[in-house]
Amino acid sequence: MAIIEGKALVAQGGGPTAVINQSMAGVVLEARKFSQVTHVYGALHGVNGIINENLVDLTDVPAANLEAVAVTPSAGLLSTRDKPDEAYCAKIFEVCRQHNIRFFFYCGGNDSADTCHIVNRQAAHAGYDLRVIHVPKTIDNDLKVTDHCPGFGSAAKFVAQAFAGVNLDNRAIPGVYIGVVMGRHAGFLTAASALGRKYEDDGPHLIYLPERPLTLEKFGTEVQVVYKKYGRCVVAVSEGVADEKGEAIAAQFTGGEKDSHGNVQLSGTGALGDMLAQYIKSVAKIKRVRADTLGYLQRSFLGCVSEVDQVEARTVGEKAAYYAIRHGLDGSVAMKRTGNYAISYFLTPLETVARFTNNLPDAYINEAGNDVTEEFIRYARPLVGTLPDFQRLDAPPVERILQK
Amino acid sequence: MAIIEGKALVAQGGGPTAVINQSMAGVVLEARKFSQVTHVYGALHGVNGIINENLVDLTDVPAANLEAVAVTPSAGLLSTRDKPDEAYCAKIFEVCRQHNIRFFFYCGGNDSADTCHIVNRQAAHAGYDLRVIHVPKTIDNDLKVTDHCPGFGSAAKFVAQAFAGVNLDNRAIPGVYIGVVMGRHAGFLTAASALGRKYEDDGPHLIYLPERPLTLEKFGTEVQVVYKKYGRCVVAVSEGVADEKGEAIAAQFTGGEKDSHGNVQLSGTGALGDMLAQYIKSVAKIKRVRADTLGYLQRSFLGCVSEVDQVEARTVGEKAAYYAIRHGLDGSVAMKRTGNYAISYFLTPLETVARFTNNLPDAYINEAGNDVTEEFIRYARPLVGTLPDFQRLDAPPVERILQK
Repeated sequence: MAIIEGKALVAQGGGPTAVINQSMAGVVLEARKFSQVTHVYGALHGVNGIINENLVDLTDVPAANLEAVAVTPSAGLLSTRDKPDEAYCAKIFEVCRQHNIRFFFYCGGNDSADTCHIVNRQAAHAGYDLRVIHVPKTIDNDLKVTDHCPGFGSAAKFVAQAFAGVNLDNRAIPGVYIGVVMGRHAGFLTAASALGRKYEDDGPHLIYLPERPLTLEKFGTEVQVVYKKYGRCVVAVSEGVADEKGEAIAAQFTGGEKDSHGNVQLSGTGALGDMLAQYIKSVAKIKRVRADTLGYLQRSFLGCVSEVDQVEARTVGEKAAYYAIRHGLDGSVAMKRTGNYAISYFLTPLETVARFTNNLPDAYINEAGNDVTEEFIRYARPLVGTLPDFQRLDAPPVERILQK
Repeated sequence: MAIIEGKALVAQGGGPTAVINQSMAGVVLEARKFSQVTHVYGALHGVNGIINENLVDLTDVPAANLEAVAVTPSAGLLSTRDKPDEAYCAKIFEVCRQHNIRFFFYCGGNDSADTCHIVNRQAAHAGYDLRVIHVPKTIDNDLKVTDHCPGFGSAAKFVAQAFAGVNLDNRAIPGVYIGVVMGRHAGFLTAASALGRKYEDDGPHLIYLPERPLTLEKFGTEVQVVYKKYGRCVVAVSEGVADEKGEAIAAQFTGGEKDSHGNVQLSGTGALGDMLAQYIKSVAKIKRVRADTLGYLQRSFLGCVSEVDQVEARTVGEKAAYYAIRHGLDGSVAMKRTGNYAISYFLTPLETVARFTNNLPDAYINEAGNDVTEEFIRYARPLVGTLPDFQRLDAPPVERILQK
């Protein structure tokens, strides 16, 4: 293999995560070790920064700065919601050619993998040597091939800690609590609400995933069953829950605004939670019913990160640099589970990850369609790293005097 | 002073906090050291557990269990929204008398201080020796006399980390972000959103407090000014913001449900945020406008606690035991700031804390009524303890080739 001299370019796309900067730092720090890499550039606001030549030079950025950014959530190079088509990709390729960029690394989800795939094809067609690596990231954990995605573990940790906390709160002042979790099509993040359970009667007592149809009737009945049993009920519900026809329940309340990917905007609206709370109040005569939409904090809260996720996000960035620069390969970096818990990294063709998404497997959902299975817990528990512990008082009751 | 032999009783009331169990553990562990304290009881669900004799015996609870509960958020003894009147307090007193309870510790806000005050008066009137101490707690930081309240620092830390995170997210994918913060009448918690700012253009760029009237016109105009300047805007707004007439903007959207304290239920509803977001979209033609209601996570999120707050919450519990048992005093434990940063504890009469609440002082609000002052930052910064750091990339721009 001939060694090609040129520049490396790294960019970040889609919704930021707590660890996407680890991947960026991994790419940059490793790429700078190769003498054939003359410069390492970063594009600001993802592919948008490429087509507008809005680039920064990361070649001489001190390692201390990169390491500090690595532990900072959200995209240090800033992000974009642009979803490039063929013409857009042609512009990306043209900028790469003009700047003698020979190694292109794009951190993102399945759309970003698709962009990588198109640009890679265009370069090959033009006979221009351009290695393109997709560096996986998504809080939704919905990428194909890989065991899981960097970014998921930290978001899952936030969701687990949020529900562990509201469960304690709900136990202190009983009622019905409904928490709406991100994840349009894939229920992984909503399922993660189960990871903070410890005692038998800990919530969430019901978990509603986009992979199973939900009707208001089912919802109302099951909440009342739990409430009757425990005197309280904590519910985790995906923002993407849909009825039998696949119509998102939330979509009726957001006016159908769509982003440039054609996705209905669901996050950041309290409508679903409020509607579900209102419904319970109307059918169950339970006065204390509260709903929260966890919203953007799930992917951006400063100070909640899985240490496992950090290491893996860093490593996919490192491996991306090795695959492209040392080995001259294109592809998407993926993870394979080799132990409990151990991960091995490998490269999968871009087209195996591009465009498609994964759902929560059937084996992770209970039969009633309102909770996860132990198999999901075994799958997801190692990914969130250390969870804070909590404990109940272990005290005997006092004998009554007045009310014998 | 004659030493009275008898039992101690501890209870927790109102909205739980991250550190209210530190105060409970402080009371229990210290009270158990005094030989005149024959038993230490805990009431389940606050005063409700007292009148129903729903008590547990904490005398022999292992210290390890108490210490584990101390670092667990939410009320380990469970809580209540009951607000006792004279007749209710008479029942509390009767249960104390029947069980030979001589030391009563109630962790809570101004309503709980009022309960302490009434029970204390009733005991004195009956010639029954009952020492009553109010142990302060509230995330709203709205108690009189004390420099600040245990529970506030941890909730403030959550709010600061939430806004520091969404600011990073909003910088990566620009738009308008509106975060609705708890605090019905007092703006301390909303003001804490400013504590995570680091760079000059970091959000929240606008902070709307219940202490200043807010109109939609003012809101819309100011958001557009910031958006024009930075291409984005992060807003922190209190759930209790009200117009010139004092009518809560949020109250129009919740159906006016009230709790037993006569307070309109504001938390856990996305209505205010969604309405404000809708308003900006309609007047400013900004497409990407998002709103989150931070909700119950502010007081219950597992794993976000101020170490300063923990120590202080523990200490007010300890001091409560000393004041009541060693010194035979009644009152509310309060804090005085004696250095930057140092605190001294003292006892203030129950009636000075009961019923009334504090607002954010004028000196902590800027003239435009849309931000906090440096004086607030100096006041609040020590209370949240260590905040996670974050950093931006420090990289020079690359010269354009195609678009000179």
